[in-house]
Amino acid sequence: MTRKGLLLILSSPSGAGKSTLARRLMEWDPSLRFSVSATTRPPRPGEENGREYYFRSRAEFEAMIASGGMLEHAEVFGNLYGSPRAPVERAMEEGRDTLFDIDWQGGQQIRNSALGRDVVSVFVLPPSIAELDRRLRGRGQDSEAVIAGRMAKSRDEISHWAEYDYVIVNHDLETAFAELLTILQAERMRRDRQPGLADFVRGLNREFDAR
Amino acid sequence: MTRKGLLLILSSPSGAGKSTLARRLMEWDPSLRFSVSATTRPPRPGEENGREYYFRSRAEFEAMIASGGMLEHAEVFGNLYGSPRAPVERAMEEGRDTLFDIDWQGGQQIRNSALGRDVVSVFVLPPSIAELDRRLRGRGQDSEAVIAGRMAKSRDEISHWAEYDYVIVNHDLETAFAELLTILQAERMRRDRQPGLADFVRGLNREFDAR
Repeated sequence: MTRKGLLLILSSPSGAGKSTLARRLMEWDPSLRFSVSATTRPPRPGEENGREYYFRSRAEFEAMIASGGMLEHAEVFGNLYGSPRAPVERAMEEGRDTLFDIDWQGGQQIRNSALGRDVVSVFVLPPSIAELDRRLRGRGQDSEAVIAGRMAKSRDEISHWAEYDYVIVNHDLETAFAELLTILQAERMRRDRQPGLADFVRGLNREFDAR
Repeated sequence: MTRKGLLLILSSPSGAGKSTLARRLMEWDPSLRFSVSATTRPPRPGEENGREYYFRSRAEFEAMIASGGMLEHAEVFGNLYGSPRAPVERAMEEGRDTLFDIDWQGGQQIRNSALGRDVVSVFVLPPSIAELDRRLRGRGQDSEAVIAGRMAKSRDEISHWAEYDYVIVNHDLETAFAELLTILQAERMRRDRQPGLADFVRGLNREFDAR
């Protein structure tokens, strides 16, 4: 019996390193499935449909919500974002873990859904706001107004840190990545995530019987 | 503010490698405190009072129970075993984790005590009963009757595997030790075990205010 996959939710303010950590984790364990979000916002240069996001019209997106096809969704800066449900449930049945790079609103909705007990949630904090600002500007492709808006959203995002199972302060990427990996590996060792154990113990008892 | 220490409970049938894992973990992290049990059984050759066990008379042991000085206790093969409470509570206040090498009865009592939410419990299973038998005989210091009694106790112990948070099958020591270490490290990263985080986030908010 394969184990049921878990849902690893990674949240953080923009610029705290969450996306880099997520990418590193995907490289480390190719069996992980990354939950590609759907959004109604237009693609940025270099973004590809189905890779960074599923780019959908508002009508398409709202039809998915109406049919129960979204595990969670929220409106941010006038655009809808959400996690399609079907690929997540398929991965769980296959015993594959799914990685979510989503904000506190999405995290809250999935934790409070029927899949809540399969969630492991990790919040990534920046070492300082000065550093967060520096990383946001480092992208060099956004206007001051966009950065100011993102900083306001960051403060809002950070205010939800206490809703998460684990917290990592991203002082440096190597340490933060090692910590994230440790969390995933430990959670996989939880008794209730190892369904093969019941059979294994039955085997031990048969050995006792045969003595 | 130092974090409150957690209680890491390690249980397994005799011969599954629990004591070796515990010793390795103590070597890896000298800040861990090992909970030395008290017992009324007589010392074996090479055992030292205060190292393997606190060797106590039945009257002394029962006086400790009566005064609430035992976190848990149980009678096994006519001898009393128990975990003295005071050093555990002192370690918790100092932010040091305590490692318990105890059986399911002790684990159950501590999990159901007021300290239950600070417990992380790990059950170690042998790869097979044949291997368990081999390891028990490898000690070469016990009679067949003692071994038969210990195997019966092993079966009883194994029947409680499903009460633990985590399960490790000890196929080989290096892997089992790495898994144990991963569990301890992840549990230390749980949000509610990092009391300094609230202050840290207040600092981030002051930085936001000052912008």
